Amino acid sequence: MNGRGANLLPAEPRAAIIGTGLMGGSVGLALKRDGWHVSGWDLDPDRRSLALELGVVDEIEEHPVADLTFVSVPVSSVPEIALAALERGGVVTDIGSVKAPVVAALHHPRFVGGHPMAGSEAVGVRGANPDLFSGAVWVLTPTESTDPEAQALVHSVVRSLGAEVLTLDAEQHDRLVATVSHVPHLMAAMLMGLAADRSVEHSALLRLAAGGFRDMTRIASGDPRMWLDICVDNRDAILGVLDEFADRLTDMRSLVEDGDSASLRDRLTLAQSARRSLPIGVPEVENLAEVAVPIPDRPGELAEVTALATSLSINVYDIEVVHSAEEQGGRLLLVVDAARASELAGVLRDSGRRVSVNDL
Amino acid sequence: MNGRGANLLPAEPRAAIIGTGLMGGSVGLALKRDGWHVSGWDLDPDRRSLALELGVVDEIEEHPVADLTFVSVPVSSVPEIALAALERGGVVTDIGSVKAPVVAALHHPRFVGGHPMAGSEAVGVRGANPDLFSGAVWVLTPTESTDPEAQALVHSVVRSLGAEVLTLDAEQHDRLVATVSHVPHLMAAMLMGLAADRSVEHSALLRLAAGGFRDMTRIASGDPRMWLDICVDNRDAILGVLDEFADRLTDMRSLVEDGDSASLRDRLTLAQSARRSLPIGVPEVENLAEVAVPIPDRPGELAEVTALATSLSINVYDIEVVHSAEEQGGRLLLVVDAARASELAGVLRDSGRRVSVNDL
Repeated sequence: MNGRGANLLPAEPRAAIIGTGLMGGSVGLALKRDGWHVSGWDLDPDRRSLALELGVVDEIEEHPVADLTFVSVPVSSVPEIALAALERGGVVTDIGSVKAPVVAALHHPRFVGGHPMAGSEAVGVRGANPDLFSGAVWVLTPTESTDPEAQALVHSVVRSLGAEVLTLDAEQHDRLVATVSHVPHLMAAMLMGLAADRSVEHSALLRLAAGGFRDMTRIASGDPRMWLDICVDNRDAILGVLDEFADRLTDMRSLVEDGDSASLRDRLTLAQSARRSLPIGVPEVENLAEVAVPIPDRPGELAEVTALATSLSINVYDIEVVHSAEEQGGRLLLVVDAARASELAGVLRDSGRRVSVNDL
Repeated sequence: MNGRGANLLPAEPRAAIIGTGLMGGSVGLALKRDGWHVSGWDLDPDRRSLALELGVVDEIEEHPVADLTFVSVPVSSVPEIALAALERGGVVTDIGSVKAPVVAALHHPRFVGGHPMAGSEAVGVRGANPDLFSGAVWVLTPTESTDPEAQALVHSVVRSLGAEVLTLDAEQHDRLVATVSHVPHLMAAMLMGLAADRSVEHSALLRLAAGGFRDMTRIASGDPRMWLDICVDNRDAILGVLDEFADRLTDMRSLVEDGDSASLRDRLTLAQSARRSLPIGVPEVENLAEVAVPIPDRPGELAEVTALATSLSINVYDIEVVHSAEEQGGRLLLVVDAARASELAGVLRDSGRRVSVNDL
C-alpha cells in the first residue's frame, strides 16, 4: 500500500471482489500481492471455484464483509449488488464502463463509481493479471453525495494497483468514452462490414487491405457481447456521438462532391495535428499543487469541495482528509494540476473558505 | 530479373523514371540493383539533382528513351507525361493511386496502368528504398487495348521488385481502394476531428484515448496533401462509399436507439469474423494452374483473352506470350488460381478457342 488513503485502513485490510472475471480477478491478484485478504464471489459456481483454484481470491464468500468491495459485474447489475455490499459496510466501488446510470442509482456516501480503462484480449479469470492496471487510466466519478474519505480510500488503492486516477463527472465520463471508445468500435464494425459485403464480390479487396485498414478495424475483432451491453447502458451518449459523426460525414461528403480542397485540407490538417499531439500512454503531469481547505467535520461540506473540482474538470491527482486533534473538523488536501490550482482556490475563497495552495 | 517477361528485354535493359520522389526513387534503386540502366527526370531541378546525387538514377535526362518507363507523378499529370513517353517508344506504366481516369485517357497498347500498394512514413527521394515493394501488392489494370506482351513485361518487372501482382479492372480498383483506403482515411480524420473538438472542453478526453482509438486514428497523422489529390481523382468512387457508409450509420443508429441487441449482435459478429479472417500480409495461393491459348499473332485478339480474365475477376499471377517459329502466331500463357482455371478455360472454349489447362 502506498498513497494517502492508506491511513484509513486497518493493519490487515480486507477486500471483497463480487464478480471474479478478468477484471475482478486482476484486482484480486494485485490486492493479494499488496497484503490484502481477498474474499470473492461469483454467481457462476464454476467461475468462483476457478477463482479460488487460481489463487485470485483467498476464500469464497457470498456475503463478504470488507473494508473495500469491488463490484465487477455487468453495469445493469451493479446497483443491486453494490447496495447489498453497502449494507454490509465498508467502501464500495465498481468497474463498469458506463457510469451515469450506476451513480444515479447509488446516492450513497460510501459508494465511489469507477472505470479502469484497461483490458486484455484474454477472456475470463484465467486471463487475470495483477499488472493489468499498471500505467492505465482509472476514472473515478465522485458526486456531491460521496464522502471524501471514501473517495480517498478508493483513490489510494487504485493508485497502489499502478493506475493513474482521473476524476470526472459521471455523465461527462459517459460522453467521453462514447467518443473515444464506444462509437469508434461501432465504426470499426461498420467499416469491416462494408468491406466484407464487397469482398463477397471481390476477393481482391482483402488483398488490398493494407496497414491503415487493418488498424482501423482491429477492435472489431473483439468479443461482441460486452458491446451489446454498452450500447444499452450508454445508449444516449452513443446516439449523441453518432449524430455528431453523421453531421461530419455529411459535411465531408459535400467537400468531396464540391471539390473544395481548401476546406478539406483544413479538416485533414486539424486532424493531423490533433493526432500527432495525442499522448502516448498516460501523460506525465510535471507541476502539481496541493490545495488545502480546513473544514468542519461534516461530510456534506467536504464533498462539496471535491465535487466542485470535478465540475470544473480539474482532475484530482490525490486526495486526503487529515483529522486533527487540536482543531474541530479537519483539513481536506487535494492535489491538482498547478496550472489549475489558483482557479480552484479562487472559487473556494469566493464561497467563504480559507484556502492555502502549495506547489509540490 | 526473374519472371516470364524477361525474355522481352535486351541484355542491358533501360528504364526511365519520370518523377523522382519516394516511389519513383524506390523503383530506380531496385531496378539499378537488378542491372538496369536507369534515367530519371523530375520537374523540380533540386529533386532531380538529389536523385542523381543519391544514386537512385544513373543519369538525368529530360526525354529518356527506354524499354520501360515508370511515370510516378500526381494522377492528374499522368496522361500527358505518359503520352510523351509512349511517343518515345517502349512500354509505359504508372504508379498512381487512382486508375480509371488514367486508363480512360490512355487507350494505348503499350500502356499498362499500375498501383503499388506500398508506402512509407518517409517523404521524398531521401526515403527511397529498393525493398519498399517487397511483399506488397501491386495492382495492374490492363484493358482490352493493352498488348499482352506489354502487360507481361510490366508484370515480370513488378515481380522482380518483390511485389505480388493483382490484375483488376480500373474502375473496380478505384471502388475497392475507396473502400479499404480512401474512405477509412477520411473517417479517421473525422473521428480525430470530433474528439479534438471535444478535447477543447475536456482535456481528459485525450487521457481516455486508449489503444483502439489510437489505432483508428493513426492514418490521420499522415500528410494531408496526397489525400486532397485522391479526393479529386477518385471523387465518384469515394462519394459512393461515403453514401454506403452513411446508410450503415443510419441503420446502426436505429439499432442502438431501439435497443435491438439481436440485430446489433449480428452486425458485430459478422464484422468480428470478417476481421479475424483478414489475411496478414499477402495471402499465399497454394494451387495455381496455367491456361494456354494458341492465338494468331494479332495483338487485339491476345488482349481480348487477358481482358476476359480481368473482367471475370480472375487474378493473373503470371503472363507470358510465347512466339513459335513452327507455327503462325503464338501461345498466350496465363497463370491463375487453379480453382478458377476451368471457369476461364470454359469461357475461352465457348468463344471457339483451343485451350489447355495444366496444374502447376
